Amino acid sequence: MSADHLVLGAFLFHPGGAHVTGWRHERSRPAEHLSPKYYAHFARVAEAGTFDLVFLADGLYFWDRYRSGVDHYGSLRPEPFTLLAALSQVTRHIGLAATVSTTYNPPYHLARQIASLDHLSRGRAAWNLVTSRYDEEARNFGGVQHLDHSRRYERAHEYVQVVHGLLDSWDDDALVRDKVSGRFADPAGLHVLDHHGEFFDVRGPLNVARPPQGHPVLFQAGGSESGLQLAAATADAVFARGGSLEATSRATTDLRARAARLGRRPPLVLPSVMPVLGRTRAQARALADQLLADTPDALVLEAVGHSIGQDLGGITADEPFAYAPDLDTSNETRSPDPVRERLRAQGSATAREVYAWQFERTVVVGTGPDVADHLEEHHRAGAADGFVVQFPHLPGGIEDFVDLVTPELRRRGLVPPAYRDGTLRDRLDLPRPASTFAPSPSPAPTAPAVAG
Amino acid sequence: MSADHLVLGAFLFHPGGAHVTGWRHERSRPAEHLSPKYYAHFARVAEAGTFDLVFLADGLYFWDRYRSGVDHYGSLRPEPFTLLAALSQVTRHIGLAATVSTTYNPPYHLARQIASLDHLSRGRAAWNLVTSRYDEEARNFGGVQHLDHSRRYERAHEYVQVVHGLLDSWDDDALVRDKVSGRFADPAGLHVLDHHGEFFDVRGPLNVARPPQGHPVLFQAGGSESGLQLAAATADAVFARGGSLEATSRATTDLRARAARLGRRPPLVLPSVMPVLGRTRAQARALADQLLADTPDALVLEAVGHSIGQDLGGITADEPFAYAPDLDTSNETRSPDPVRERLRAQGSATAREVYAWQFERTVVVGTGPDVADHLEEHHRAGAADGFVVQFPHLPGGIEDFVDLVTPELRRRGLVPPAYRDGTLRDRLDLPRPASTFAPSPSPAPTAPAVAG
Repeated sequence: MSADHLVLGAFLFHPGGAHVTGWRHERSRPAEHLSPKYYAHFARVAEAGTFDLVFLADGLYFWDRYRSGVDHYGSLRPEPFTLLAALSQVTRHIGLAATVSTTYNPPYHLARQIASLDHLSRGRAAWNLVTSRYDEEARNFGGVQHLDHSRRYERAHEYVQVVHGLLDSWDDDALVRDKVSGRFADPAGLHVLDHHGEFFDVRGPLNVARPPQGHPVLFQAGGSESGLQLAAATADAVFARGGSLEATSRATTDLRARAARLGRRPPLVLPSVMPVLGRTRAQARALADQLLADTPDALVLEAVGHSIGQDLGGITADEPFAYAPDLDTSNETRSPDPVRERLRAQGSATAREVYAWQFERTVVVGTGPDVADHLEEHHRAGAADGFVVQFPHLPGGIEDFVDLVTPELRRRGLVPPAYRDGTLRDRLDLPRPASTFAPSPSPAPTAPAVAG
Repeated sequence: MSADHLVLGAFLFHPGGAHVTGWRHERSRPAEHLSPKYYAHFARVAEAGTFDLVFLADGLYFWDRYRSGVDHYGSLRPEPFTLLAALSQVTRHIGLAATVSTTYNPPYHLARQIASLDHLSRGRAAWNLVTSRYDEEARNFGGVQHLDHSRRYERAHEYVQVVHGLLDSWDDDALVRDKVSGRFADPAGLHVLDHHGEFFDVRGPLNVARPPQGHPVLFQAGGSESGLQLAAATADAVFARGGSLEATSRATTDLRARAARLGRRPPLVLPSVMPVLGRTRAQARALADQLLADTPDALVLEAVGHSIGQDLGGITADEPFAYAPDLDTSNETRSPDPVRERLRAQGSATAREVYAWQFERTVVVGTGPDVADHLEEHHRAGAADGFVVQFPHLPGGIEDFVDLVTPELRRRGLVPPAYRDGTLRDRLDLPRPASTFAPSPSPAPTAPAVAG
């Protein structure tokens, strides 16, 4: 169920950091957000901290729904597979995880890309399955509105089957490559998927050999009922919502039970955490306050308005407004959220207050030992196999983590001093899956059948 | 119209070389066809020969229509963008060209990938537009048969418009990134494409900044009437069929005239050439004979049968068969082809003879100076701005080219001794295109209108 260490993913949300105005930090380098050196530096610092993964967020759109998204967000970014393939050549050990939409990527393309990345990285590829939930994305792919939530997850389930079937097109020993006889491949080791399902018709075979990991590591991140069932049924690891020890424990226990009911090994559970670090607590608090203060008012108003489904145009960030959840006419899925619950209980607040509540809920503000305490506490309580670490500003945030938190984690034996050899699966203690075309193991002997 | 040197592309057809049994050559390394080191070596040798481009072939299928395709072809390969992004980090100068199907890739994905590759390579990306012509490809993307030929080209034309429109989403100076004011981008420099055409509905904007080259270099390779018109209307460069000086000159002149009629700068024309090299002519001939002899009979029969649209099952490779073109019931497009003309004239031949005719038509067998003569003759006659060089076996074929042909080309002043700085467009003397959203230049003054 768990690797021999605290599994750590280094999340790359916006190129400038997970906080929307992280790019304004004095150590940030917004002019380099499309430069290979910028990402190589990020990945190398992550390797210095023996992170298990670079984990790339992605969306198939630019967020221009609100003016502040254009004015103030630094969210132009390279396409994930292109970027990770580049990083595969300037790193040696770290896993490379791409966020992939099952709604807008044909599975044949995804299977080729993830298989190619796994070959080019010698077994370090992972994919984080998402289903895309914004109309902005639909409109870039011939649609108008995003697919209904439950249909997206049914589609995702079939998608995983197709991708795994394509990855298994060639048995591991099918490629003979015998120069003397001229035999390149053994046809007995070739499998034509010939999938005809509700959402996909895909014949195969794939024109890439079975990847080093068999199936690159599959992440899933959905927190809805259908998302959790998909994760329980298919995922190797789950990027979970972070939060209090109690909430995280409950969610992790639930997910493990779902997998057990399906007869599956429970996925690794990696909640999100965003450390806001300082050498002293006062420094850390000052950084948190600075991130809040650096957020332009227009962005505060539009971000809060968007998250609660209520237009806050016409007021200032410091003017209290009455919460009116019944006016939410957006068609976007909203998971239960303590901030909206607090706002509902309180009835009104200023946008700046709500923005600060949201921020404080996602961050751990403190010193290296404080953050290590938080991670260790969750890990020891069984609430987390590791974490997906978000950095409020980059590259400073990951540099600080490796300077201040990693030594603490190593001292406590939670993180190894160096990588051990092998594929990403090896390091995460995830077995290499058998081919979906492999003969099933013989059933266990049962009472002999009595001839009728 | 032409760069200051002979433009050379290093073509990667099958990973083991352009000849189907190149992987059997003693210097070939078929076990490394999915290894990053193998491709890094190829690209570095190409850079040692100041090739302008690594040019990746691609197809969205594995060719299992014939048993010999499974048994004998070594055609498992990485996905082009993943591979080229990896190569961008282990090379410094060479252009990186990916073959892309406009039929099965959503234009938003392609725009992101080619823009990302251009950023990560600092201006070295190119794409080779193809429309995909095999049913095998359709069946991997939910279809049964490939699209009708002329529809594919109408679609491709609209595809290029959409991709260029997306690449131009952000003006070059739109990204302000001012930490003090918190202004990341200037909304006046953002353009929403909002394309609604016959084949595509794509809103945009792209979430990648305008690439260093503006529009990465666009190749086109179709030889049909619609392919030539598409190339004349959109391409920066054309990967043309090779052949005799007369045929190549005629085709190049035709293409330049088509572009001129459309008021466009003529694309660079790069015919294909496959040198079969030796230090002596006898050695070169021996290599050519060996490549033919290494081809298993089953492959000879099925390859010839496929190319002429006639099932040759049941006979041997040395048994004459009667050509029956009227029996060709495949729905694949066949360009005019001298080999089929010869077969038609002759009435019958053995499969091995036809296979040898095809082979000899595509190769230039000789020493370094012989091959340099061939290239120089076509170049001086204006029939070619350069060549896409195919290597019968790899990596030996490109190593031999750089050892035997490149010094000859340099001695003759056709190829520079080193790269000059700049983007791929700079080196090909192709101007960086203005944004499709840029205001048109004022029309030239005409006679003043007379008020009615």
